[in-house]
Amino acid sequence: MGADLVTAGVLVIGDEILSGRTKDKNIGFLADYLTQLGIDLKEVRIVSDDREAIVEAVNAMRARWSYLFTTGGIGPTHDDITADSVAVAFGVGIDHDPRAVALLKDHYKEGELNEARLRMARIPFGADLIENKVSKAPGFRLGNVHVMAGVPSVMQAMMDALAPSLASNAALLSETIDTGIGEGLVAEPLRLAQARHPDVVMGSYPYLRDGTFATKLVLRSREQGKLVAACDDVKTMLADLKGQQQTQL
Amino acid sequence: MGADLVTAGVLVIGDEILSGRTKDKNIGFLADYLTQLGIDLKEVRIVSDDREAIVEAVNAMRARWSYLFTTGGIGPTHDDITADSVAVAFGVGIDHDPRAVALLKDHYKEGELNEARLRMARIPFGADLIENKVSKAPGFRLGNVHVMAGVPSVMQAMMDALAPSLASNAALLSETIDTGIGEGLVAEPLRLAQARHPDVVMGSYPYLRDGTFATKLVLRSREQGKLVAACDDVKTMLADLKGQQQTQL
Repeated sequence: MGADLVTAGVLVIGDEILSGRTKDKNIGFLADYLTQLGIDLKEVRIVSDDREAIVEAVNAMRARWSYLFTTGGIGPTHDDITADSVAVAFGVGIDHDPRAVALLKDHYKEGELNEARLRMARIPFGADLIENKVSKAPGFRLGNVHVMAGVPSVMQAMMDALAPSLASNAALLSETIDTGIGEGLVAEPLRLAQARHPDVVMGSYPYLRDGTFATKLVLRSREQGKLVAACDDVKTMLADLKGQQQTQL
Repeated sequence: MGADLVTAGVLVIGDEILSGRTKDKNIGFLADYLTQLGIDLKEVRIVSDDREAIVEAVNAMRARWSYLFTTGGIGPTHDDITADSVAVAFGVGIDHDPRAVALLKDHYKEGELNEARLRMARIPFGADLIENKVSKAPGFRLGNVHVMAGVPSVMQAMMDALAPSLASNAALLSETIDTGIGEGLVAEPLRLAQARHPDVVMGSYPYLRDGTFATKLVLRSREQGKLVAACDDVKTMLADLKGQQQTQL
């Protein structure tokens, strides 16, 4: 995993998520989607519909990660300020984009394309459009920033449209091992196993089962051979651990 | 809404959320919970189990918001590094805390409290403990930072334990109006209504219903009288709008 690992940040924009009124469905989707593409999601932020907050997050995240994906705030209403904020973040102008206007003219009936809807054709200078198969109003890509809708079905269609253009790493392989025992028992041998297999990332995830805690281990690597060796080692470790417990009874 | 508004940030810590393996349930819960308490959630971040990433996010967010709430990374395994990272962020030491050790000794049977489980008693110097009614291992509060577990039932119990100690604003009141029409039609009159009622925040949220987009409006204010006046104004505006549409048919 070198310096040229392909990474991503996700920025969710919207007061309705922060107030709890709307439960976000895009973060989980994008986490799965990017992992399947072989892109490492490293950071997510949720900010309000506030220009200063959006500009700051866009600039911090686009500098840090290979790709930034934003969701929300590109509709026709006064609180949709993502496109204008991204233009400010990049220091470029913004206006009605002829390509986007043409898409909307094609979609809406005569007289339906009012001034508010035309707002959805405001695109920062120098951006490429991202196709929206669901409701036509496009997203856009500026530099390494991909600006998408907040409505999940529209965001997902945009992600499908832009995915073929994204670079990716070798896919991250993973194996899950359900230990059936508490995290406190497995922690120390797991720490030693992690030290023996530095190229395999070992995570430990407690969960409640019938009122007691059990633990799932997830082992991840980009190298199949190393992943298999680490899984074998951990399974042997768990068998030993259970043997010890039975001896103690 | 003056400079002394009580605000909050939420920091979710965990590779398993970023990889998509686990779907976060804490952000939505905390958004609802804080809104009900009358605390304005302003920013959420999700970062990986990486010390540098945690330290940077903790320091950025605790400086900016009245309160910071973190979830995840306080279990017994090697990848649970939140407590150590928070100590680094504050520049204080960390060690086994006698109060936390006593709680764990009380909870575990003789011989069960191994070295890994004792890790859960590592608490930065100067912190207060946050009670955990579910599985005993405590969270902690250091300055304005509240460090909680990632397991939702445990996090929720910790939030219940610390809620009475939190300051809050006058509760934010809200009214939802389902317009039954597309966002593009309501956008311009809504912008004008927003301009007439600056102390009421008006949000517009499109959703798909039977294949076409409809729009819910959410009006929010801390002042009941102003909220009622704005709602009346918006309802009149919508009735006018629907009247115009019927005239056009």
